[in-house]
Amino acid sequence: MSLSKWAISLGAAYLSASCAYAGEIKNVIVVIGDGMGPQQIGLLNSYVKHAPNSTYKGSGRISAWESLANDGVLGLAYTDAANVLVTDSAASATQFASGKMSGSEMIGADEHGNATETMLELAEKMGKSTGLISDTRVTHATPAGFAAHQTHRSKENEIAGDMLNNQVDVLLGGGLRHWIPKSANDKDGELHAQLKEMTSGAVRIKSKRKDERNLLDEANNQGYQLAFTKEQMQAASGDKLLGLFAYSRALNGIEESHSMEDPKRTSPTLQEMTEKAVSVLERNDEGFFLMVESGLIDWAAHDNDTGYMLHEMLKMDRVVKYLHDWAKDRDDTLIIVTADHETGGFGFSYSRNNLPEGRDLPGDVFKNQTFKPNYNFGQHDTLDKIYQQTASYEDIFGKFDSLAADKQTPAALAELVNSHTEFAITEKEAEKVLETEPNEYYVEGHGYLGTKTFPKVNEFKEFFVYGAGVRHSLLASIVGKQQNTVWATGTHTNTPVPVIAWGPESVTDQFDGLMHTTDWANFAIDAMR
Amino acid sequence: MSLSKWAISLGAAYLSASCAYAGEIKNVIVVIGDGMGPQQIGLLNSYVKHAPNSTYKGSGRISAWESLANDGVLGLAYTDAANVLVTDSAASATQFASGKMSGSEMIGADEHGNATETMLELAEKMGKSTGLISDTRVTHATPAGFAAHQTHRSKENEIAGDMLNNQVDVLLGGGLRHWIPKSANDKDGELHAQLKEMTSGAVRIKSKRKDERNLLDEANNQGYQLAFTKEQMQAASGDKLLGLFAYSRALNGIEESHSMEDPKRTSPTLQEMTEKAVSVLERNDEGFFLMVESGLIDWAAHDNDTGYMLHEMLKMDRVVKYLHDWAKDRDDTLIIVTADHETGGFGFSYSRNNLPEGRDLPGDVFKNQTFKPNYNFGQHDTLDKIYQQTASYEDIFGKFDSLAADKQTPAALAELVNSHTEFAITEKEAEKVLETEPNEYYVEGHGYLGTKTFPKVNEFKEFFVYGAGVRHSLLASIVGKQQNTVWATGTHTNTPVPVIAWGPESVTDQFDGLMHTTDWANFAIDAMR
Repeated sequence: MSLSKWAISLGAAYLSASCAYAGEIKNVIVVIGDGMGPQQIGLLNSYVKHAPNSTYKGSGRISAWESLANDGVLGLAYTDAANVLVTDSAASATQFASGKMSGSEMIGADEHGNATETMLELAEKMGKSTGLISDTRVTHATPAGFAAHQTHRSKENEIAGDMLNNQVDVLLGGGLRHWIPKSANDKDGELHAQLKEMTSGAVRIKSKRKDERNLLDEANNQGYQLAFTKEQMQAASGDKLLGLFAYSRALNGIEESHSMEDPKRTSPTLQEMTEKAVSVLERNDEGFFLMVESGLIDWAAHDNDTGYMLHEMLKMDRVVKYLHDWAKDRDDTLIIVTADHETGGFGFSYSRNNLPEGRDLPGDVFKNQTFKPNYNFGQHDTLDKIYQQTASYEDIFGKFDSLAADKQTPAALAELVNSHTEFAITEKEAEKVLETEPNEYYVEGHGYLGTKTFPKVNEFKEFFVYGAGVRHSLLASIVGKQQNTVWATGTHTNTPVPVIAWGPESVTDQFDGLMHTTDWANFAIDAMR
Repeated sequence: MSLSKWAISLGAAYLSASCAYAGEIKNVIVVIGDGMGPQQIGLLNSYVKHAPNSTYKGSGRISAWESLANDGVLGLAYTDAANVLVTDSAASATQFASGKMSGSEMIGADEHGNATETMLELAEKMGKSTGLISDTRVTHATPAGFAAHQTHRSKENEIAGDMLNNQVDVLLGGGLRHWIPKSANDKDGELHAQLKEMTSGAVRIKSKRKDERNLLDEANNQGYQLAFTKEQMQAASGDKLLGLFAYSRALNGIEESHSMEDPKRTSPTLQEMTEKAVSVLERNDEGFFLMVESGLIDWAAHDNDTGYMLHEMLKMDRVVKYLHDWAKDRDDTLIIVTADHETGGFGFSYSRNNLPEGRDLPGDVFKNQTFKPNYNFGQHDTLDKIYQQTASYEDIFGKFDSLAADKQTPAALAELVNSHTEFAITEKEAEKVLETEPNEYYVEGHGYLGTKTFPKVNEFKEFFVYGAGVRHSLLASIVGKQQNTVWATGTHTNTPVPVIAWGPESVTDQFDGLMHTTDWANFAIDAMR
């Protein structure tokens, strides 16, 4: 490490002495790990460096994230939205898309409710090509903040329309449900059959629209090629591409890890989407703006699902590796890798469970004395076990909820958990996960708080807000003692998040130190102008 | 913000073009915020920028920490000790004092148990003066890692001896209890009276030693001046100074905030200790090494005590401001401000409690629509209320425990909490804080786990390990909904921690990016050589 750091420092000194970079910024690429705070980087880094069977090999064992950080500039960004202590993804995306403060849950509006100009819109004005990618829905908060203007993040039907109006050249991700007419839900109808054929049966056909707008047709008429499978995406040859690979989210990290080399896989990985987007966008001589969201980091973190989150971090890291490789010989590109906020308050932590045995050490300080720490500071092989999880908690509970009502027993839950993870729970523990209580925070009509009962959390209960999903966090609290893992919340925290800026030093120098997310947005906007 | 960043960036460009700094490093100053991860920086930053009555004034509202980070280089360090996922303060201090990996809870020994050479010892060899300061005990893990070699951090009596043997020139902090003979405990004895006089009655006279060594006498014979009050410290004129201002910890942040200008205050603030140490050490033409620990950040964080922790962060920030001011025109000094690990997994977070009312906004996006977020994202005035806490949870429970047994009721606890904080709890909530259960992790003779009952934690219980102190965390979990605060653990996390390096750019350049704590230690050691 020390040697490689020294080499990097020599390299940096050389660059700074020679002012090698001074050209204009033609391409701006922003990678958002949604919810990817320093805590999530800590998980990735522990796995990369210390898992006995780490998928990262060789002496260095350096993540792509670390490699980019060491090659570029690393700073920290605080993320709060206007007038509040903590941000959601919509306000945060709006803020770093525009450089303007925004209000909670708004899309593309400043704190007073006025539409913001985003860096994507600016890029369009400058004649650049533009792209938005997400492994969640392309209409989800983070991409939406760059290309839509709505009062609330939940208006994904309207956001889909805004994105088309905005003429974003490449849109790739999940969320077909907001692009097809509501009549698609008639399973015996012609449209349903047509869509089934069009998507090669790879995507669940179900609409969330309340109207008959068919945004696929509209896109087609505007010159977009449509893709619903990896093959269709890769075959597309035009300059405008709309790829919708799932009803809601695209592949999650566990699915990616297990199907990477599977020839039967129909859905593209996040890296494949990124490669395709770059190959389309780079044809424009004026350059491009691209935002890639590794959005399921946040979903895993809301669930306090450590195994799921690890695989999401590995997915994000593959995207960063590809982009770093693509850009490494260029001096016209700015890459920013950062987050919109931290989610979950994750950590490895030390405990009173399973204290270490004493052992002898050869060194002079320990003559006749035993090395016996007072607490369990966590073992490296736990990292391999976390990696071995084969389904997200969301999917495990999905299976559980699809059992007949009388089969939804604690024993059944334990069996499901134990067949998908290395951290077995007992029937009694499963019972605790399934406990409910009256929802004292009931709000009629609220998307998540509108149920009369709620999973039963004891400490910090007010921070577990997503209805039945709270069971995932309860499971996490029970396996924590085996994993040496802790979580603070089912929502977000205000922890400042790392920002990597890679590119010409005259631009990236500004990213050192502490800044608000709107600050780095303005650096990027100024660099692009 | 954007403008000031731009100015800083211009400044940085100028420095890097002119290679202004190239001299040798004469002085190395390391400031350790114990437990000060990005989460703690987040708390400080939110307070500084957004508290309606923030003690930071002016348009910029920049903490000294931010100012130093923007002026120097900011990186992130991961902190784990040898073979484990999470470190304690002893192994971590040993690692960054020496640049060598260490084992859990060891002091000044590498992972094989061999004594490590520390940067303080290297500085001594080079003829530099040396100093160690802590607002905990000077024999506590962090300073100990720089000047002692012991199998375990609990051997503070032996650590005191090592520190004297090591001839550390300036030692300032708490922990008199490890420096005086056990016979000092005889309240009718001559020694007790003598010590009482010597300390002007400012320090509780009680020994934790098992022998009759009087390290104060030994120090005196070695040429140390002794100080037990602020006045004695400030009056000292020699080159060697041992200041012990408390039985255990020195002033905590709340006490500092409330007594800063109080002429009756006898104990020095951490800043005053730092000023004194610098004034002594800077007399040496060969330069000096100084480590200042803001150690109670960690104690507050173990207790999940947000108000206490805020005041500790403000204390740390005053030290950083003083050091930045002292060094700003020098080109021979390296200042490092960082942490040994993160403690507690703190965050502001959004909740389902007390949802916001809808309101109208003037902007075009909100025509005829109301701004009404779905969750409570936290209000800025909460920051003022957190600041207004007048006693730490430790002190509140200290008062509670000193009540007669039959007066230790939930009502009494609620009254104490409500008289010292702005976040009132009910008698019923106090009852929950005081609940206990059989300690299923009982270990005979263990300093904290050796009790048959334990405070009753429900989720992640294994991570709340410090006996009766766990009640503090239970209180935190109850006021969380009022504060919009969450905590993940009663111990540490592996979250990478910020590292600021300020000084000649040829040295600080290495601190950008991700590194292990041993990496920055080696940068500092190499710079000093």
